[in-house]
Amino acid sequence: VGHDLVLWGRDTEHLRAVDRARANERYLPGIPLPPGWRLEPSLAAAVAAPADALVVAVPSRGFRDVAGVLSTCVRPVISVTKGIEYDTGLTMCGVLRGLAPGAGVVALSGPSLAMEVARGIPTAVVAASPDLSLAQSVQTLFNGPTFRVYTSADQLGVELGGALKNVVAIAAGVCDGLGFGDNSKAALVTRGIVEMRRLGVALGARAETFAGLSGLGDLTVTCFSRQSRNRAFGERIGRGESIASIESSTASIAEGYPTAKSAWHLARRLAVETPIIDEVHAILHEGKSPAEALRSLMGRGARVELD
Amino acid sequence: VGHDLVLWGRDTEHLRAVDRARANERYLPGIPLPPGWRLEPSLAAAVAAPADALVVAVPSRGFRDVAGVLSTCVRPVISVTKGIEYDTGLTMCGVLRGLAPGAGVVALSGPSLAMEVARGIPTAVVAASPDLSLAQSVQTLFNGPTFRVYTSADQLGVELGGALKNVVAIAAGVCDGLGFGDNSKAALVTRGIVEMRRLGVALGARAETFAGLSGLGDLTVTCFSRQSRNRAFGERIGRGESIASIESSTASIAEGYPTAKSAWHLARRLAVETPIIDEVHAILHEGKSPAEALRSLMGRGARVELD
Repeated sequence: VGHDLVLWGRDTEHLRAVDRARANERYLPGIPLPPGWRLEPSLAAAVAAPADALVVAVPSRGFRDVAGVLSTCVRPVISVTKGIEYDTGLTMCGVLRGLAPGAGVVALSGPSLAMEVARGIPTAVVAASPDLSLAQSVQTLFNGPTFRVYTSADQLGVELGGALKNVVAIAAGVCDGLGFGDNSKAALVTRGIVEMRRLGVALGARAETFAGLSGLGDLTVTCFSRQSRNRAFGERIGRGESIASIESSTASIAEGYPTAKSAWHLARRLAVETPIIDEVHAILHEGKSPAEALRSLMGRGARVELD
Repeated sequence: VGHDLVLWGRDTEHLRAVDRARANERYLPGIPLPPGWRLEPSLAAAVAAPADALVVAVPSRGFRDVAGVLSTCVRPVISVTKGIEYDTGLTMCGVLRGLAPGAGVVALSGPSLAMEVARGIPTAVVAASPDLSLAQSVQTLFNGPTFRVYTSADQLGVELGGALKNVVAIAAGVCDGLGFGDNSKAALVTRGIVEMRRLGVALGARAETFAGLSGLGDLTVTCFSRQSRNRAFGERIGRGESIASIESSTASIAEGYPTAKSAWHLARRLAVETPIIDEVHAILHEGKSPAEALRSLMGRGARVELD
């Protein structure tokens, strides 16, 4: 709020368009860019600019490549990217810690649809770092009258909540696409949070974290909001559209798509039962029909403890 | 599914209209009444009709009056009403147990918007009784291909989840009415379930029950669905409509309205911290402005543990 910002983006054409319009018409139409925000086409120059902190908001699939430039960084680096790297099983803060050992790595996550944040609609999120004083400094930096930041020491739990919820949201979208209703989605959310927590705890996260803003909070908004990209992606899948066709019509694919693969892989490795992740993985990566996957999921409910 | 049913309703005119149209055009327009369903204008005759079980679906404010007719009933009696009696602090099964000591009292609750159930959209709910074999017999009676029934021994927890979620849903609706967005509602749901659980546990319910279909599941659908009456009631309040005007334009007022009063009263008595219930109570019963109440609620967030 009121901070100056140097903004780099991979798509230089788009960056120029944003600069000309002083607005991001592709993602946040109608929201003027604050006067103190400067667009910088050189990544090295953007990183070298004096700043209190760096924010990394690159999709998970390009994250490692871009974050490599931070190797000598000793400032706070804040990841807002929600994903799990397939090869390593690392969350984005894990990737950052490996690449930039001198940086203070913080995750910022929670129910925060970008358009609502931009429009000043009350939003609450979590800044997470094992170093709580670092999380608190990010809290101070980002807190504002309509953007409230809480802190957590469970960085892994906060990140896993944000990443895994996208997979459940794809399943929720598939429900929508198949013409199912809110009752079905509510049952899915209820089971989804249990499954996210089970996998998260097996990976070393704290169970309670999944009941918070970055877990349950983000899950509900992503499963129910019309604005959620992962839900919308699932809806198109549920309607029978192919991934290739969706991919060709969107600037970047929903994060839940690669995350389904990473999460499924991790769950197999750790022998954790993850029925929702399994079915989403089967739809996206094994060619299973959405209707059949949802049928298995609903049928499977009988054998999964719910209450 | 496929059961015969004798249906009594307080509004004899409406009952006759349903019989003539063989459909409930007021609440479930377009859904034909199953052929085996018979309308019965006499409550005594309806209760006396031979049946495997009785279902009580009377609003909480008229519940005790109507349920009085069951005093000598020894069959399973299933309550689908979500409320807390103000004078006694009892849930509807508590009221039933007092009035009909010979009956087998079961609560049936969960995310189950009536129109979706009627349209055969997959729905999952919970049948709850301290007598699990009784809950299981209700499970068998109601289970169907698109209506899945789980069981729980924590009847009080299941009922409190269903009742208290309506109060949180009113707050969610107020958010909508004030023009807030899904981020705000997600934060509210996250805090709401904590508050519901805290009050429920103080009243003797099990904490885990609130994480299930009848707690979290019902809360999410009621806060996010366009079809939820309690959310819609809150939305009208948030837009500035008076309770009198809402009351005059709807057949029966949303259950969250009386429940806010009962829950607030219980929380005071037990000294449980319930910020959301307090603010909804202040809006509905103390004349506080919705905008001011939501401001207090968002501001208060800082002092309430979230993660």
